[in-house]
Amino acid sequence: MDRLTLNTTLSFANLVQTDLLEVENILHSYIKADFPGLGTALDMIFSAGGKRIRPIMILLLGRMIASPRNKLIILATAIEMLHTATLVHDDLIDNSILRRGNPTLNTQWTSSATVLTGDLLFACSARLAADMENIEAIKLFSHTLIEIVNGELNQMFKGRCQVSREDYYQRIYAKTASMFQTGAKSTALITSPDPEKATALAKFGHDIGIAFQIIDDILDFTGEQATVGKPVASDLRQGLITLPAIIYIEEHPQEKEVQLLLQGKCLEGEKNINHLVESIRGSNAIKLSHQHARDYVASGIKALELFPPSPERLALEELACFIVNRDI
Amino acid sequence: MDRLTLNTTLSFANLVQTDLLEVENILHSYIKADFPGLGTALDMIFSAGGKRIRPIMILLLGRMIASPRNKLIILATAIEMLHTATLVHDDLIDNSILRRGNPTLNTQWTSSATVLTGDLLFACSARLAADMENIEAIKLFSHTLIEIVNGELNQMFKGRCQVSREDYYQRIYAKTASMFQTGAKSTALITSPDPEKATALAKFGHDIGIAFQIIDDILDFTGEQATVGKPVASDLRQGLITLPAIIYIEEHPQEKEVQLLLQGKCLEGEKNINHLVESIRGSNAIKLSHQHARDYVASGIKALELFPPSPERLALEELACFIVNRDI
Repeated sequence: MDRLTLNTTLSFANLVQTDLLEVENILHSYIKADFPGLGTALDMIFSAGGKRIRPIMILLLGRMIASPRNKLIILATAIEMLHTATLVHDDLIDNSILRRGNPTLNTQWTSSATVLTGDLLFACSARLAADMENIEAIKLFSHTLIEIVNGELNQMFKGRCQVSREDYYQRIYAKTASMFQTGAKSTALITSPDPEKATALAKFGHDIGIAFQIIDDILDFTGEQATVGKPVASDLRQGLITLPAIIYIEEHPQEKEVQLLLQGKCLEGEKNINHLVESIRGSNAIKLSHQHARDYVASGIKALELFPPSPERLALEELACFIVNRDI
Repeated sequence: MDRLTLNTTLSFANLVQTDLLEVENILHSYIKADFPGLGTALDMIFSAGGKRIRPIMILLLGRMIASPRNKLIILATAIEMLHTATLVHDDLIDNSILRRGNPTLNTQWTSSATVLTGDLLFACSARLAADMENIEAIKLFSHTLIEIVNGELNQMFKGRCQVSREDYYQRIYAKTASMFQTGAKSTALITSPDPEKATALAKFGHDIGIAFQIIDDILDFTGEQATVGKPVASDLRQGLITLPAIIYIEEHPQEKEVQLLLQGKCLEGEKNINHLVESIRGSNAIKLSHQHARDYVASGIKALELFPPSPERLALEELACFIVNRDI
């Protein structure tokens, strides 16, 4: 299967290759598009791949705690569908040109068609969630959707040029960790009524989700434009202050650009922004941010100690470590 | 309550005023917007009112069959929330300026904020649907969402200048009747496991939903621009062939403009379109379309005969008649 190339390179996914292939097949076949344009667009969206970290996490967790296979596969697909839906609308809103190295839908279609395609993916993820036939998991799912959209609105309306760790963690929870948390907790919900297990899995999902976003925010500073598909420090350029910037600002309160930001003002002029970006890239703020992400991963791995050692638990630890060690 | 002015003028809603007020309150308070812009925008969307036909129908049906009150109110709110979500994205996609005589959100906000606000309303309707705690109703709900979005995509990609009754009825089912049908059928699902009742209510919802859209399509031809908020025959001008046009075309196959349309070509030039619009307005196609709508309403009312006569059944008959007699 050509479309699974990316996934198979992730060794921690080996245990769940068969199930992952089924998730992939459902993603590609769930939407019956009876006009060619949409079919091609959807194929493009799903074939662009991505790392499928969320479904791999869910499938491994489910295998570890012996979830019913059918529901587990639906859950993994529902979460990846929801994730994809948010990407389609996000790229439209941010006017992004590339996603995973491929042109985004909004660069090829009208914005109207892109809005509707995102809506269709949202609707399909809701349908998949309903197919889990588990009220608690469905509620959690819908709650997460509200969380994600509210987070986006927050970022749009009040997130600019604010230097606040609290805001930052709220934002990355809404944006990323909530979906990891819901996927992980739902795995427990579809399996057993044991609240202790649900709490442990929710914590694992939450913590590696936070780590995942911190790394994304680091890569925004350190990644090469060609790899990431956007200009270096695109967040900061849009007035979005992420962890590396926050740490740098806290440690250099006297610098000119930092003082402006601490007064809640946005930086103006490319020269000023470039200067700050270079300072952050060259500072230990990157290393310290990495340490934060590693702490979250360690805490997530610790939450799994509730479960006896198993190949699945080991693979989940590898997945967690991959999240902080990746460079893409 | 100022915001209920419109509803209270509809006498068939008298029996359910208290519940309708609760629906209204939930609609207005469900979303905690912690930034002023969004709060104002949401208030504007919900205060613009609309006729609340869908929740009134659901509340009357539920009262007729003794649905559990809490779930009934959640269902009525979920459907109105979903309806509102579709309006927000539709107005953005169609670039509409007015909705119910008020400026649309997309004329006041960026399209990004409008996309997200629609997403938030979708998410809230999904949350409300989950709160019904009824798997079958939740599944129906998510299925309807797919139906609606697919209908919009169909209309965008292949609905232009096609003269086909079959396409037309498919389109108005997806666009309007599916939501009436789901609201009505869900009322049965949250009340009793009797499939016969569910089928009867689904038929009532479907039929008055079809009638509702036929009347909307008639009003597009006959309404005054100032009342409807868009130019006369805006559908035809966009290449969307609705029932009055289909009937006219079938009865006048020899006319120049009609021949072009029958060859699948879109009309060009305002003069040609205006000529056809005036011909349709002056023809009996309007009266015949009305007759179709009345037939659907009669068929919907007949479906209610499964239930013993009651003030609620009478009010539902009045609601159905209002749908075909309204001029707005």
